[in-house]
Amino acid sequence: MRVPIIDLLHSPCVKLQPLSITNIQLSDSLLAPRLEKNRTVTLPTQYHLLEATGRLRNFQWAAGAEESGFEGLVFNDSDVYKWVEAASFSLATHPDPSLEALVDHVITLIARAQQPDGYLNTYFTHDRQHLRWTNLTQQHEHYCAGHLIQAAIAHHRATGKSTLLAVAQRLADLICQTFGPHGRTGVDGHEEIEMALIELYRETHQQRYLDTALFFLDERGQEPPRLGHREYLQDHLPVREQSEAAGHAVRLTYLACGMADAAAETSDATLLEAADRLWHSAFSEKAYLTGGLGARYEGEAFGARYELPQERAYAETCAAIGAMMWSWRMLQQRPEARFADILERLLYNGFLSGISLSGDAYFYVNPLADRGTHRRQPWFSCACCPPNIARVLASLPGYFASTTHTALWIHLYARGNLQAPLPDGQEFALTIDTDYPWNGSIRLTILSAPPYPTTLALRIPGWSRTARLTSSEQAHPLSPSPGTYTQIHRRWRAGDLIELNLPMPIERIVSHPHVIANTGQVALTRGPLVYCFEAADNRDIDPWNCRLPDTVTITAHTEPELLGGIVTLHTPASVRSSAAWRGALYPPIDILTPSEQRGELIAIPYYAWANRHPGPMRVWLPRA
Amino acid sequence: MRVPIIDLLHSPCVKLQPLSITNIQLSDSLLAPRLEKNRTVTLPTQYHLLEATGRLRNFQWAAGAEESGFEGLVFNDSDVYKWVEAASFSLATHPDPSLEALVDHVITLIARAQQPDGYLNTYFTHDRQHLRWTNLTQQHEHYCAGHLIQAAIAHHRATGKSTLLAVAQRLADLICQTFGPHGRTGVDGHEEIEMALIELYRETHQQRYLDTALFFLDERGQEPPRLGHREYLQDHLPVREQSEAAGHAVRLTYLACGMADAAAETSDATLLEAADRLWHSAFSEKAYLTGGLGARYEGEAFGARYELPQERAYAETCAAIGAMMWSWRMLQQRPEARFADILERLLYNGFLSGISLSGDAYFYVNPLADRGTHRRQPWFSCACCPPNIARVLASLPGYFASTTHTALWIHLYARGNLQAPLPDGQEFALTIDTDYPWNGSIRLTILSAPPYPTTLALRIPGWSRTARLTSSEQAHPLSPSPGTYTQIHRRWRAGDLIELNLPMPIERIVSHPHVIANTGQVALTRGPLVYCFEAADNRDIDPWNCRLPDTVTITAHTEPELLGGIVTLHTPASVRSSAAWRGALYPPIDILTPSEQRGELIAIPYYAWANRHPGPMRVWLPRA
Repeated sequence: MRVPIIDLLHSPCVKLQPLSITNIQLSDSLLAPRLEKNRTVTLPTQYHLLEATGRLRNFQWAAGAEESGFEGLVFNDSDVYKWVEAASFSLATHPDPSLEALVDHVITLIARAQQPDGYLNTYFTHDRQHLRWTNLTQQHEHYCAGHLIQAAIAHHRATGKSTLLAVAQRLADLICQTFGPHGRTGVDGHEEIEMALIELYRETHQQRYLDTALFFLDERGQEPPRLGHREYLQDHLPVREQSEAAGHAVRLTYLACGMADAAAETSDATLLEAADRLWHSAFSEKAYLTGGLGARYEGEAFGARYELPQERAYAETCAAIGAMMWSWRMLQQRPEARFADILERLLYNGFLSGISLSGDAYFYVNPLADRGTHRRQPWFSCACCPPNIARVLASLPGYFASTTHTALWIHLYARGNLQAPLPDGQEFALTIDTDYPWNGSIRLTILSAPPYPTTLALRIPGWSRTARLTSSEQAHPLSPSPGTYTQIHRRWRAGDLIELNLPMPIERIVSHPHVIANTGQVALTRGPLVYCFEAADNRDIDPWNCRLPDTVTITAHTEPELLGGIVTLHTPASVRSSAAWRGALYPPIDILTPSEQRGELIAIPYYAWANRHPGPMRVWLPRA
Repeated sequence: MRVPIIDLLHSPCVKLQPLSITNIQLSDSLLAPRLEKNRTVTLPTQYHLLEATGRLRNFQWAAGAEESGFEGLVFNDSDVYKWVEAASFSLATHPDPSLEALVDHVITLIARAQQPDGYLNTYFTHDRQHLRWTNLTQQHEHYCAGHLIQAAIAHHRATGKSTLLAVAQRLADLICQTFGPHGRTGVDGHEEIEMALIELYRETHQQRYLDTALFFLDERGQEPPRLGHREYLQDHLPVREQSEAAGHAVRLTYLACGMADAAAETSDATLLEAADRLWHSAFSEKAYLTGGLGARYEGEAFGARYELPQERAYAETCAAIGAMMWSWRMLQQRPEARFADILERLLYNGFLSGISLSGDAYFYVNPLADRGTHRRQPWFSCACCPPNIARVLASLPGYFASTTHTALWIHLYARGNLQAPLPDGQEFALTIDTDYPWNGSIRLTILSAPPYPTTLALRIPGWSRTARLTSSEQAHPLSPSPGTYTQIHRRWRAGDLIELNLPMPIERIVSHPHVIANTGQVALTRGPLVYCFEAADNRDIDPWNCRLPDTVTITAHTEPELLGGIVTLHTPASVRSSAAWRGALYPPIDILTPSEQRGELIAIPYYAWANRHPGPMRVWLPRA
């Protein structure tokens, strides 16, 4: 069974090949328990919610088996599809006959709702059948179709069954017949169909899916406008001419995934260049320290350059997911550590914050400061994020490594085992022994390797300024540069040992001066983790009343019992009661002489906040 | 002719009586030219736009004299009414036969559009007549009626004519017959009718108008919900129980005006208390330094406590206007300097920024930081702000002073003449000689006074920490407290001189620590003016790259030729090129050692920004 997140085996223009999610077995203390919780808590509770909220019943109604009518939002079918995709990935790494039976049951419901001509969208059935394709701008028909296609591909790869793939292909065929240079113009307001059709092309080798995806990509920014030239919908310019990450953040990331996928299949340099320009815009000027994207509640959108409010950060979990998928695609074509750096930043921060430690509550929005009112919810009426989180967690091992014909590239580190089959039938196998992300000491032991010289490429994170690399055949340790892949070429043998040490000093991070929301403030990171100060750890001190002196010593403490096992940071701080302001909102500086006291603050990883009792939280603290 | 902004002559529960706008003649260098520009540029260009955008044609269409159909937004009638109100105030202080003829013409159009039963709203005529009152939540019927009533009252007071008042009363009568304890429930989603009906009661002494206003006030927050219990519409709680300024900012200020007006007529302490609690919430926790209200674009709404982003400040000009009207109403009932302090803060900053020096371009939104893209516009499709600015400017003299039976209260200072008739027919008259707000030296010369001891109450602004007061009959100067009214009781005689000196040192202002958007930043004020740094004065230095040292000497410079004549502030600053970041968004603090250079920055009054070529602007700068 080969279950890559994207399958680039036959893509002419890629440098790296993703591994199958089945080729990495995580056994670390942070991610592995999350994957387990995803399987045992998240998928079952989400299934129950799909039922309870009418999302499954909509398929029965569309099939004529229920009188209920359509319930909920127009794109609710996509939540079911994302759950099927997540469950399929889970079946690949953890066979489970009862889950598989449940997936088969859902697929039966989906298949029965398909119309005779292949159309499938439960909202546009019965009385609304005549409204098909009449409001692509707002009604998410292609978006839902895209999620069906992705679910079908995951299901096909994970189980070998074609039950859902056949359904998806019939719908895809209808779309390909309906839209295109010889058919209708138009493109969905919410991107998704583009990357889905390209993956369907990869899975089935049917050229029409690629052609239609390329058609949709180029429909944006045309005359007459397909989507009102709205920046919100990335319709303000042809995609090849776009250079600023703008509009609805999730949509932009999904569009960029489609652009990167198209570039991989067509060697279209303008598409890859545009996708890279947008990536640079997003992550050099418009991203939160957590990797989160989307500064504005209005339009769930990117803001202006450097507009990154803390408390009203939007940073939708789905945008973090879209950005992971996007960065992953860029990395396979341009194997540069910057893409993996952001992938890791998102994984451990802006994405992982989206789900509770208990696995059954979610953030849609991920602020960087809060007074205690922002809490994870068990579900949303617009429930895009929860099943999106589930599918990423279920497929997470697939993001750890890639291969070339003669190399193994390791992007992310965590305790586990890895098998990397090469095209000639040879295989790398190794174990990774580490407490990453809590400790940067990483020991790789080769279990097997091809009988000829090959390359092991190890990512040196951009945050790691004093990395050291030693291996059993090497006299002197190397000091590889941060933000690169260190490549070791040799004939590897079982038992070879590589030791990569990525020291994790506590870093004080500041912001570009045009991020005026962060003026005069500092944040703490350690390794890939962004930290925050939360009331639950700081009972007598409101973190919003504290300043962090530049010169104090901050210490790291392993806390195996806290929040699933974390490293906390302890720091002296300057504390002043906000009562010192006596109600003044804007006092003259010379009137105010609030006496500051010395206090101690404890920071926890950002992803772990809001799992205890509510209270103020801040990532950035004023410098003192 | 007596043209007070609100007429409290018969209101049982007020402490102060507003003067007529005809009783103060401004001749200062800042406001008087604005009032002149309002008359010569703003009112004529707005009339042209009312015509060109179909707003006047809508009335002709409603009267059956045009086939055009209704054009524009559902509340567009209100823009015409606000223009009539502004023009009427202008006629009061500056008779102008051609403007009066134009007003009469517009009134004729309005009157012809009135339906036989008194109904008047051009949108709800012809085919939409049956939709009257069916969507109070969104369609602004009472809101438009309220603006008609206010226009009619201003017109009646200014010209003595009842042409528009008769129209307004017929509509008000229909509303009073339709809604009430014995009629329909319901209340408009956008407050305005409440204060308008109470003013109509004051003008006509018809109890039904007051009763219906009180009914509408108490419709909010009831069961079953009239407006979905939406906080956005101030329907989440009964108004007497509200204590946090929340929801749409303009609506909240207009609601609070109605509450204060009702309290003035009914001695309802719970209403005044609630209005005061809301005022405290707005100005102690949710206002910008400019007085602007509304932190969020989404919903044009108040944010959480202390949520006050700079670049994405909403601070709608209409909210500043609503807040001036609200503070003015509070001041008449609770003559405390805090209300006048905010009135002045708004007037010179958050309100005055809403209009260009040329008098024909407007800000809807008033940010505190910008990269050069936010520019005043000649009009808006939702054009609430421009005619709202015009009516405030035209009535501005009315905000300067109030009387009691035996006292004159002066709230605002500017060069001019003032006549204050007392109820017994006696009159105060005085000249005010000052260069305020550029200079705090104020010389009041009594021209005439009642032949018995009376009180002169002079506001000592809250920002004035070293005020000195001398008068011709007083041996030693007084040092009155900031944020109070200094009351001098005596038998005043012509020629008496009072000299009030309000030194205007340049103040460095900081923010409550929970205003995290302003962390580590300082703003400059001088007297009532908030300053900003704009690219036009700082050609070689991007103000966004500067820090302001706490200890440098800042100097004030009179610039008679600049921006209509202003005082600029010159300050040394620490400047660092943002190129020093080399593209890094979040560098570790120890990597970054940008070399800072010393530069000179020039600040101008905030109200005057964006009148020259576009470029970066900031009110708050990081401290160094």
